[in-house]
Amino acid sequence: MKLLYSMSALALSAAVALAEGDPIVHDGEFNYLRAQFGDQWDAQDVEIEQKLTQIRETNGGSPNFLYILIDDVSFGQMGNRTMNYVTGFDTPNINNFAQEGMSLMRMYTEPSCTPTRTAMLTGRHPVRAGVDEVKVALVGEGLSAQEVTLPELLKEVGYNTSHVGKWHQGDIEEAYPHNQGFDWAAFPLHQQVQLSLMTEDTMRTNNMLGYAESGQNNQFQLDQRFKPYGLVTGVEGEAGGTAREVDMEPGEKWTQAKYEEMNERYQRQIMEQLEGLAAKDEPFFLQYWPLYPLNFVYPEEALSRNGGFHADKLQLLDAWIGDLLAKLEETGEADNTIVMIMADNGLMYHYEGTSGFNQLIYRGGKTQHLEGGVRTDAFIRWPAAIEPGSAAGDMVHVSDLFTTFARIAGATDFIPRDRVIDGIDQTALLLEGEGNGRRDYVYVYEGPVLRSVVKQEFKMHLPTAGQPGAAADVFNLYRDPREEHAQVGYSLWSGASFQDMVKRHQLTIAQYPHLALGKDTPYNGIDNLRPESQQAREIFQSWQPVK
Amino acid sequence: MKLLYSMSALALSAAVALAEGDPIVHDGEFNYLRAQFGDQWDAQDVEIEQKLTQIRETNGGSPNFLYILIDDVSFGQMGNRTMNYVTGFDTPNINNFAQEGMSLMRMYTEPSCTPTRTAMLTGRHPVRAGVDEVKVALVGEGLSAQEVTLPELLKEVGYNTSHVGKWHQGDIEEAYPHNQGFDWAAFPLHQQVQLSLMTEDTMRTNNMLGYAESGQNNQFQLDQRFKPYGLVTGVEGEAGGTAREVDMEPGEKWTQAKYEEMNERYQRQIMEQLEGLAAKDEPFFLQYWPLYPLNFVYPEEALSRNGGFHADKLQLLDAWIGDLLAKLEETGEADNTIVMIMADNGLMYHYEGTSGFNQLIYRGGKTQHLEGGVRTDAFIRWPAAIEPGSAAGDMVHVSDLFTTFARIAGATDFIPRDRVIDGIDQTALLLEGEGNGRRDYVYVYEGPVLRSVVKQEFKMHLPTAGQPGAAADVFNLYRDPREEHAQVGYSLWSGASFQDMVKRHQLTIAQYPHLALGKDTPYNGIDNLRPESQQAREIFQSWQPVK
Repeated sequence: MKLLYSMSALALSAAVALAEGDPIVHDGEFNYLRAQFGDQWDAQDVEIEQKLTQIRETNGGSPNFLYILIDDVSFGQMGNRTMNYVTGFDTPNINNFAQEGMSLMRMYTEPSCTPTRTAMLTGRHPVRAGVDEVKVALVGEGLSAQEVTLPELLKEVGYNTSHVGKWHQGDIEEAYPHNQGFDWAAFPLHQQVQLSLMTEDTMRTNNMLGYAESGQNNQFQLDQRFKPYGLVTGVEGEAGGTAREVDMEPGEKWTQAKYEEMNERYQRQIMEQLEGLAAKDEPFFLQYWPLYPLNFVYPEEALSRNGGFHADKLQLLDAWIGDLLAKLEETGEADNTIVMIMADNGLMYHYEGTSGFNQLIYRGGKTQHLEGGVRTDAFIRWPAAIEPGSAAGDMVHVSDLFTTFARIAGATDFIPRDRVIDGIDQTALLLEGEGNGRRDYVYVYEGPVLRSVVKQEFKMHLPTAGQPGAAADVFNLYRDPREEHAQVGYSLWSGASFQDMVKRHQLTIAQYPHLALGKDTPYNGIDNLRPESQQAREIFQSWQPVK
Repeated sequence: MKLLYSMSALALSAAVALAEGDPIVHDGEFNYLRAQFGDQWDAQDVEIEQKLTQIRETNGGSPNFLYILIDDVSFGQMGNRTMNYVTGFDTPNINNFAQEGMSLMRMYTEPSCTPTRTAMLTGRHPVRAGVDEVKVALVGEGLSAQEVTLPELLKEVGYNTSHVGKWHQGDIEEAYPHNQGFDWAAFPLHQQVQLSLMTEDTMRTNNMLGYAESGQNNQFQLDQRFKPYGLVTGVEGEAGGTAREVDMEPGEKWTQAKYEEMNERYQRQIMEQLEGLAAKDEPFFLQYWPLYPLNFVYPEEALSRNGGFHADKLQLLDAWIGDLLAKLEETGEADNTIVMIMADNGLMYHYEGTSGFNQLIYRGGKTQHLEGGVRTDAFIRWPAAIEPGSAAGDMVHVSDLFTTFARIAGATDFIPRDRVIDGIDQTALLLEGEGNGRRDYVYVYEGPVLRSVVKQEFKMHLPTAGQPGAAADVFNLYRDPREEHAQVGYSLWSGASFQDMVKRHQLTIAQYPHLALGKDTPYNGIDNLRPESQQAREIFQSWQPVK
């Protein structure tokens, strides 16, 4: 009986929403829009609440979620046959999937893996949670326990939650997914730079230089930790328990082959998780964050015409996603499962030319505030409520998923009211279709630095310190999606409007200051830490000013 | 009875094709492929001939053709909903049309209007016909009478032929469309630089500088012809007759309003022509080459979110094309009419930022050998024979339409055998689908200069004079569609193969030297030449070394 938990939560949630008892704290810019559209939205929300109730009644409970977040794929690289012909690799399963739901044509993410994932999990610009940089090796930092995540909200209304794949929210115990709302999780502690680049294989592919010990013999070397060895690889853990590293023995060397096995294992595990969760009575929130297409070694036999080491793995991943969607169909839960497929940010443009990916439509990629860094393909399917084959040109930010999914699950009440939530409730867009979005702006950060502000079709690249706003480049994204032709004719009227937007954002921050990033000794809560990982941790900790 | 002419021609054509009596003279590179695939293709051609015969029998004759060639629109700018969202203008009619037939995903054109149109009309690289430059004003040059055009072939097998819109094949009498195979034609003598830029309106839009007399008052000016005034505008003519200029009185000033009226007139005329031709017994070849989207003045009220002066007119043109396709439906001829919609080359990138168009996917535009200059959207529909919703990644060059359409119409025998025909018969691709193309190469000229050679997924930018082939940039177009990351790993094996391709091309030219461009006094054969046009012609002729 999936009905059980969600119905009681719904009753509560609807009451609060209608009474407007304790509204979510949003950014100043949203309140500026609310001043213009609030009454209209409130009226629409009453209808939407009725619709959601009806859907829950029809389907015997709250919907399941299967959230697939793919790494480093630029807008247009998946889900579109025409673009498949351009790039020479095929994504037929994602193309079909896109036709079965709604294509969110203007999805904004953060420009890197860690911040996008933080934004989705917390509904907040990552900078508010102190997340300001992407970490590769040992850091002793991570998503703070004081952040409230979407799976934590969903637990409150009775969901079962699992996570499989990339996590990248830090190497401290409080940041582990099974300590952030997931009942169970299988994930690597770090990310693909370690897993597919810090190997001998990639020294030979010319993609990782100077790392492999076997590749250079410098007898004057002192520090043994400048090249970060001994990192923990993949672990698995359960809520309330500790984690165990899997598939690595003490002294064992990590290789590309082990990376490929890890990917295959996660694919097997996501299938098992789906099967297991679907068989239970409660609704589920299942997260699959694949490591592929990131990969830096050519396959033995190329799958695609493109053959690039990222492109080929995206084609493989597409087939795996096809298998997963077929499995969902088999479970009988497909009709009332919200499936979302999207990417976390643009391509790793640093490997353009050989990875097989390219800055296809928008300029820029991972790490950059340009559209190519923060615009991604995003498709969402919910047969019970979302029009098949639809598309929406409304703006959406990845943080909106937090607020929207919480509402759909009846968990809005559990969203904390003591901090800013950037995520807008976009349920109206999903249910009522294009033109019902509630966002026409995005603040684009690179780490802790606000680099761009997007409003409607206009985008200002913020001026460098000391330069006046009228000197800043403003682009029309429809006419110039690659942000190459700034026009003074835009800047001279919009400069002031953009600066007002920045002020509204800054005033909100002044009222609700950023929280701190979690900090701790890394690798706590792992049962079977290998001696080399223990050693790495000891040396890492040795320099800490405060222990 | 459309059966009449085409059946007799078919009998002849099939006999010749099967007997291989007098093969078409192709470029060396095609013969190189033929040496590898000839037997297979010959066998397939027997089946295809049977299929064509059957289609003709079922439909009571040869198919009609409606060929729509749009000016200066880069690949991806029309026919694709996702891209509509990126660019902020909509092409719903072309999008739907694309779904009803085959999308040719790798259509190559020449990089400018005149050469692409010559290639389509003659089946030859324009340089072979002496066409080496794009002309704006008075030139006394044009497509030679010795060239054999597709409509001339189709006349031989009983087609009625009409042309409406841009022509741009020269200002001499032999080059006029009604002297090049069309029964009737309405067309401007020159092109849109004259028609939408050489006006006072565009001086004020900042798009045409220094042309309008009213915009600058330089009392030291002598030559009154440096700014080309008095050009002939739109004319209409019938085969065997003379032409008449329409809608311009002596002394009248050309304006943007007149340009807009001209566009509307052509749209009316194409509808009338379609209605008239469909009512006749014979099959028809109807050509619509709109002047829009080229246009350099903002509309009074923007249609599109983009609002750029090209983008907005493409959205308008899309609606007009919708009307035309609806009219075709009404006539009852849609099932046996081959409709093709494509563009002649990439955008006028010079107006990027304000035109609303941009180098969306491929880099470069009009006039350039880069993919952005020569890759265009191309959709072809033939309900009787082409799979709806299909797509093909095979390479096609615009000259292939000449040979392919001739074959489908049963006019192959009339293709001249005394010159090189670059156009490959791609009927197998249309009828049998993707993977049945017979071309994996294109030579890309800028005017008379061979600038690039494309083979399969590889493209060499030819080295500058004096540089060795191994120094030339070679790109993988799947991995790097914008041609930005040349890799020496490609050059060092493909350099020799590309140079062999150039040699095969040059040897063919040595065997069949280029023919001469037509030359004559401009504006002959126009009944009502205005005094200012007469004067312009007189001064133009005054300097000619040979009269």
